[in-house]
Amino acid sequence: MTDKKSYLKDLKDGSVKISLMVNKKLYKDGNKMLYLLSDKSGYINAKIPVKVKLEPGQVIEIEGVKDYVLDVFQVKIIEDYNIDDYLATVNRNIDEIMEDIEAISRECITSPQGKMLDDYFFKDEKFLEKFKRGIGGVSMHHNYIGGLAEHTFGVMYLTKILCDIYDCRRREIAVLSAKLHDIGKIYEMDYSGPFKYTLEGELEGHIVIGVQMIDRGIMDLNIPFSEEFVTRIKGCITQHHGKLEYGSPKKANMEESIILNFADTVDATLNKINQVKEETKEGTWSVYDKKMETKLYL
Amino acid sequence: MTDKKSYLKDLKDGSVKISLMVNKKLYKDGNKMLYLLSDKSGYINAKIPVKVKLEPGQVIEIEGVKDYVLDVFQVKIIEDYNIDDYLATVNRNIDEIMEDIEAISRECITSPQGKMLDDYFFKDEKFLEKFKRGIGGVSMHHNYIGGLAEHTFGVMYLTKILCDIYDCRRREIAVLSAKLHDIGKIYEMDYSGPFKYTLEGELEGHIVIGVQMIDRGIMDLNIPFSEEFVTRIKGCITQHHGKLEYGSPKKANMEESIILNFADTVDATLNKINQVKEETKEGTWSVYDKKMETKLYL
Amino acid sequence: MTDKKSYLKDLKDGSVKISLMVNKKLYKDGNKMLYLLSDKSGYINAKIPVKVKLEPGQVIEIEGVKDYVLDVFQVKIIEDYNIDDYLATVNRNIDEIMEDIEAISRECITSPQGKMLDDYFFKDEKFLEKFKRGIGGVSMHHNYIGGLAEHTFGVMYLTKILCDIYDCRRREIAVLSAKLHDIGKIYEMDYSGPFKYTLEGELEGHIVIGVQMIDRGIMDLNIPFSEEFVTRIKGCITQHHGKLEYGSPKKANMEESIILNFADTVDATLNKINQVKEETKEGTWSVYDKKMETKLYL
Amino acid sequence: MTDKKSYLKDLKDGSVKISLMVNKKLYKDGNKMLYLLSDKSGYINAKIPVKVKLEPGQVIEIEGVKDYVLDVFQVKIIEDYNIDDYLATVNRNIDEIMEDIEAISRECITSPQGKMLDDYFFKDEKFLEKFKRGIGGVSMHHNYIGGLAEHTFGVMYLTKILCDIYDCRRREIAVLSAKLHDIGKIYEMDYSGPFKYTLEGELEGHIVIGVQMIDRGIMDLNIPFSEEFVTRIKGCITQHHGKLEYGSPKKANMEESIILNFADTVDATLNKINQVKEETKEGTWSVYDKKMETKLYL
Amino acid sequence: MTDKKSYLKDLKDGSVKISLMVNKKLYKDGNKMLYLLSDKSGYINAKIPVKVKLEPGQVIEIEGVKDYVLDVFQVKIIEDYNIDDYLATVNRNIDEIMEDIEAISRECITSPQGKMLDDYFFKDEKFLEKFKRGIGGVSMHHNYIGGLAEHTFGVMYLTKILCDIYDCRRREIAVLSAKLHDIGKIYEMDYSGPFKYTLEGELEGHIVIGVQMIDRGIMDLNIPFSEEFVTRIKGCITQHHGKLEYGSPKKANMEESIILNFADTVDATLNKINQVKEETKEGTWSVYDKKMETKLYL
Amino acid sequence: MTDKKSYLKDLKDGSVKISLMVNKKLYKDGNKMLYLLSDKSGYINAKIPVKVKLEPGQVIEIEGVKDYVLDVFQVKIIEDYNIDDYLATVNRNIDEIMEDIEAISRECITSPQGKMLDDYFFKDEKFLEKFKRGIGGVSMHHNYIGGLAEHTFGVMYLTKILCDIYDCRRREIAVLSAKLHDIGKIYEMDYSGPFKYTLEGELEGHIVIGVQMIDRGIMDLNIPFSEEFVTRIKGCITQHHGKLEYGSPKKANMEESIILNFADTVDATLNKINQVKEETKEGTWSVYDKKMETKLYL
Repeated sequence: MTDKKSYLKDLKDGSVKISLMVNKKLYKDGNKMLYLLSDKSGYINAKIPVKVKLEPGQVIEIEGVKDYVLDVFQVKIIEDYNIDDYLATVNRNIDEIMEDIEAISRECITSPQGKMLDDYFFKDEKFLEKFKRGIGGVSMHHNYIGGLAEHTFGVMYLTKILCDIYDCRRREIAVLSAKLHDIGKIYEMDYSGPFKYTLEGELEGHIVIGVQMIDRGIMDLNIPFSEEFVTRIKGCITQHHGKLEYGSPKKANMEESIILNFADTVDATLNKINQVKEETKEGTWSVYDKKMETKLYL
Repeated sequence: MTDKKSYLKDLKDGSVKISLMVNKKLYKDGNKMLYLLSDKSGYINAKIPVKVKLEPGQVIEIEGVKDYVLDVFQVKIIEDYNIDDYLATVNRNIDEIMEDIEAISRECITSPQGKMLDDYFFKDEKFLEKFKRGIGGVSMHHNYIGGLAEHTFGVMYLTKILCDIYDCRRREIAVLSAKLHDIGKIYEMDYSGPFKYTLEGELEGHIVIGVQMIDRGIMDLNIPFSEEFVTRIKGCITQHHGKLEYGSPKKANMEESIILNFADTVDATLNKINQVKEETKEGTWSVYDKKMETKLYL
Repeated sequence: MTDKKSYLKDLKDGSVKISLMVNKKLYKDGNKMLYLLSDKSGYINAKIPVKVKLEPGQVIEIEGVKDYVLDVFQVKIIEDYNIDDYLATVNRNIDEIMEDIEAISRECITSPQGKMLDDYFFKDEKFLEKFKRGIGGVSMHHNYIGGLAEHTFGVMYLTKILCDIYDCRRREIAVLSAKLHDIGKIYEMDYSGPFKYTLEGELEGHIVIGVQMIDRGIMDLNIPFSEEFVTRIKGCITQHHGKLEYGSPKKANMEESIILNFADTVDATLNKINQVKEETKEGTWSVYDKKMETKLYL
Repeated sequence: MTDKKSYLKDLKDGSVKISLMVNKKLYKDGNKMLYLLSDKSGYINAKIPVKVKLEPGQVIEIEGVKDYVLDVFQVKIIEDYNIDDYLATVNRNIDEIMEDIEAISRECITSPQGKMLDDYFFKDEKFLEKFKRGIGGVSMHHNYIGGLAEHTFGVMYLTKILCDIYDCRRREIAVLSAKLHDIGKIYEMDYSGPFKYTLEGELEGHIVIGVQMIDRGIMDLNIPFSEEFVTRIKGCITQHHGKLEYGSPKKANMEESIILNFADTVDATLNKINQVKEETKEGTWSVYDKKMETKLYL
Repeated sequence: MTDKKSYLKDLKDGSVKISLMVNKKLYKDGNKMLYLLSDKSGYINAKIPVKVKLEPGQVIEIEGVKDYVLDVFQVKIIEDYNIDDYLATVNRNIDEIMEDIEAISRECITSPQGKMLDDYFFKDEKFLEKFKRGIGGVSMHHNYIGGLAEHTFGVMYLTKILCDIYDCRRREIAVLSAKLHDIGKIYEMDYSGPFKYTLEGELEGHIVIGVQMIDRGIMDLNIPFSEEFVTRIKGCITQHHGKLEYGSPKKANMEESIILNFADTVDATLNKINQVKEETKEGTWSVYDKKMETKLYL
Repeated sequence: MTDKKSYLKDLKDGSVKISLMVNKKLYKDGNKMLYLLSDKSGYINAKIPVKVKLEPGQVIEIEGVKDYVLDVFQVKIIEDYNIDDYLATVNRNIDEIMEDIEAISRECITSPQGKMLDDYFFKDEKFLEKFKRGIGGVSMHHNYIGGLAEHTFGVMYLTKILCDIYDCRRREIAVLSAKLHDIGKIYEMDYSGPFKYTLEGELEGHIVIGVQMIDRGIMDLNIPFSEEFVTRIKGCITQHHGKLEYGSPKKANMEESIILNFADTVDATLNKINQVKEETKEGTWSVYDKKMETKLYL
């Protein structure tokens, strides 16, 4: 197994030699092909001669010159590597994130049925393993290993704050829904290699998958949950995209789901802006962002 | 138990005496209140003096004058009645409809796993009982007892035809999905009295409910379904509204779900038009229809 | 001067006698006219015989029966009253709200130019008097005396929190903009009597008015503000509605204005929901809300 | 005249030599230019060195390597050819399609005036010649010689079925309108060489052209058509795109035009999907389709 | 034949006695029904006891009190009247308007084929008679006898001016198209009594009708028009609503049709505003206008 | 200082040698980069070898071959030049345009306060200097030095005409607003070199900037303007984009602002079309225009 010697985040401009994973073929530019490459510490665009044929998932050692993009003149394919060195990964320690999640849970999820449903997932080692590696998206926000946990924490935190400020009638429902709102993403996307959607993800999406996961939990637990509790939790997951045109099968029509939708939107957008900030010097304009439909003055 | 003596569909214009159920309070019009009333044979609008206070679900014997609406001057509340006489009900014999459904099933649903999933629902007496009484909607199309079965047959029939004409790669998937596409409606609406949405229906909707029902079926059956089969069926249910803005959590992206969406739209619209035709003389304009956003020249 | 003896919020259902102000003529309902009435403690709809002719701004003593609406049979016009008893007014003590606003200001607005611009408004007694009585809207959210201050605090608080969580590059800009974002409303609306828009409000709106107020402040102060500071603050006010279709002359394209827009939307919506909650029993559906385009299950 | 020796549909991957017609210059890709080429049996994209200058309509003999696209290294322009060998053409025998069209006509178009109007077009040799070569579109669906007839049959067939299932009040009007709905396309597009829009097509479109053709027919025939018959037929042609935003000058407001619009949409979409299926292996995703705004899992 | 003694435009507030025609039943308001009444000089809303049953087209003599609306207490039906006294009619003398139209025509329509097509319509006495009585709409703009001519002149005048200022390449095409753009309205609406749409109007609309009229003219004239001339004129008529969502079968894509669309929109809107101005005192707000989606400060 | 020897508008196809300014890097095309170049007489696209690195604002002498684009093989950077020779500039003499503007002003702006406000700007030499060099946009319409004045005249002229034809109640308000409607553009864009937006322009936009300029004028003049006059003028500036989705902070709700919006739209569109006409031979199609979302048949 070849040890990875350097990481993208430490790379200086100028001549570089580094091993990276191919994530995506972007487009041809003259006699170079543009690729999105990654390692644990982040992403970079690289121009590689078209005659070198590469596929997503391959790990390569390259030599080239780095400034805004990486201009590559030498490519060698590496067969023997540790995949975890090459998948973009959250900055914070994942266990700290999980501990933050649990701290909010201890404060807000206190009813027996609430705890039971929470534990069904978050005390299940198999689930936890998937969740802790989970990603927030293939390319939108939180698109790195651990991003799902980081996003979940962000949404729970905002949800709790908004419930407290605005006296939400059922904070436990809101916070538990926040914790569970994106669990469907662990089956919606495949993050064992370069991130991509699964078939299930393309056909059903994480909302429909997530509600089924909760439904199975309810049935497996086989205890007398209150019907209202179950319906509200499922309603929040169902409605967390807020409006039909954003893929919500029902328009948000509960206090809890409206708060959850705000928390989700805010955390996703501001995480995205933080990613853009990393590539944009203070007091200048970012490049145009397709998803936000604007460039940003930062 | 008072026997119901006459039905709406047999009523002539002029002085009438008939027992009907209150479905909905519509709006005040001078010193009369407009109500939507029904019996087994259909619906009628009635103007009733405001001083008579009525609630949905009550059955009343009225005297009045009928032309376009029913102008009521005498109201007596009836306590002892057979609810089935007062809920709008499909014209065709429900068992004939079910037999039509099964005929298509026998032709198109032929694989072992397809039949297993079909039978899980349609050989389950409890499910069947609910399904046969099921309604297509509270007020849109097929809004009568048995309407769900009638609509399901219509959608299956069109789906089969379209699959045959256009060589659909997986007719069984398409037809089985058509059969199951609206089963979530048996929990989305309450049709034991005047039709209304359930809490589950308002918060989750029949798409999300339906996918969960199928998921439970798959788990209960506990046989080695092919993963692709399960994902395609769930994908079709998930996508049968076609576009996000119509409440589809994912845009239709399969041949089968696109065909199903067409069949569903066509059957719903043409059933609605047939209802409008009943109230509209040939060669004249119907009243404006809010859902279709037009009046119709029929 | 007649003392006001009882307030809406203390009124029980049944026979009542109370003095209230006419806010708005709503619509005719049979031989009654529906009016929106108010006193300091809130709003109520009242049905008053059509033959009684009333205009917005009149104060009346009525006798009638209260349940969901007030059914009035006796009306007497009152000439001598204290207007402040009849305008809907915020629940919290306004000086406490202002102190909360200043606490955040002390923490976040710390640069000399930031404090100078803040003080230009918030140490000006004439401005303060108008601001403290200001309303958030004629009928949307925070539609009561003091509502502008309450909303401003809510937006500042959320803005500060979001800046802290997501490491906003310029928290002072964001928080100061939050403090100033709706100052244009003190000229957009007239709240000396029943709330209504001013001519300026209808033609320019509070965004354009607000930017002019800041521009005048900058000129009056006549100190060397950094050009970037001024442009950013004005940019935040300009963009706080986020998108063109919501009346923003420019799409939000700054980290600070995006945060401000979220804080504004969340505070306005959740205030509105809290108003709806007051009229809706737990575990039931609210009436349909036109602005939110849904009823809410609360 | 050079005989064409091989056809696209029979071409294997690897080294090829074949004569094809240039349809469209697509875009430059490095030092190659991408062209859309065709022969009678279909279309293919080809990369041709930029220094070779080609124009739509030219027939060329090429040598190159075929896989997903055709990579061309040798090009020879051919002067002497039979244009019919190079225009994409429907698979089925055109006379069989016409016979299918006439079979439905015999069954459904039975009134004297219906038959008169039908015969005005479909017994006119000049019209028939154009119609049988007509195309469904330049690039959308049925974009091949004979595609207009194939599409017309598909729409007539679905229209007839829908009329029968849903008891359309005027099946003859619906089916005759289906037969005539796209006749304007014979003047909207030019299909004597590489397919393109005519000036008339760009300025008026096939709906407006089609109604004029019918109007001329009515006048030429000079017999006492019922006014209602004429207005309904013209109304169906006018409204067959269903909604204003799809180019319908009037929203569909007749049972017949609504059925026609469904039949048209379904046949166009499912024809398009069948074209995509030809290029997509079972159980895989198609390329993204701009018109349908999705990729398809087939 | 009863002579009409007074006209709406001369009516003072207070007690009145006048004969008017019923145009439209609006809605019930308590025990009165609101009707739209008219005479030659304009429109008025009137409240008439519900027990009096009236139908559009009836002429009645009423006694009542006029202020904003007419409060009627006495109604007598008149059998013997001159319909022209009761249909709302343009203020200006119709022959003067026609003369203005011809003056622009003489200046701008000068080519032999242009004059031929113009004369085909405007030297045809039967056409002229219909055109001079034609209306601009049932309720939108220019909704009075002669309104079609007045609007046509307005559009021609603006078209000519815009062509001159911006050097339109083909002024004659633009101005002739302006003259013909709404001729379809003479068959789209019925203005022999209370204004209403014809069946043809509802199913085809004035654009499609208008193009057919021109097509017939071209054929009747049977002279060698240039093909480009004919296509451009028809293109302008086809495209004069500018965008698909406004009922234009093709988006405007010619200099001439874009100018025509501007002229049409401006004349229609400013005519409408002038109607609103007549009912709105200077320096006050008009009532909300549904079509313009705003009230106006005038 | 090198004298500029030839101008774009005089350039023939074939071998050329000319000095031009770099305006914008467009995109790479093989081993050439496409640039937008300009001189006083207009714009041209040029393909320049990628190895030559150029930045907006540089002036270069090039040798190459011109047809549709300029194919460059030799580039020399020029240091010593007169910037005015290289910025695209209006065709007409700017002083003639200003005289036309003043002629309308003399006719229409006649009240003391109207003249005072007009003179505040248009008798201020510093303002005038900026205004006369001002541009209508970076790339839309009137994108050349002097374009702001040309556009302002066009809008004033149309506004005056429309006021006269349709009897606008306050022609002076409308015409003065037309004169001032885009003055914010002198700070929204930077036209000292290659045209670009300023920070202020991106964050506030010319509407908000323009209202502030007027507000400052009102304050500086310090005379008793009527409040209504000021509010109407500011209202017109605020509303001149007509609808929220076009960046108008308030929907146009005044006769004057609706006329101004029409005049602005018409002048901008027809100027744009005139630019397209220059590049499009009579009787042919223009290239597709992104802003107008169509190609034009000219």
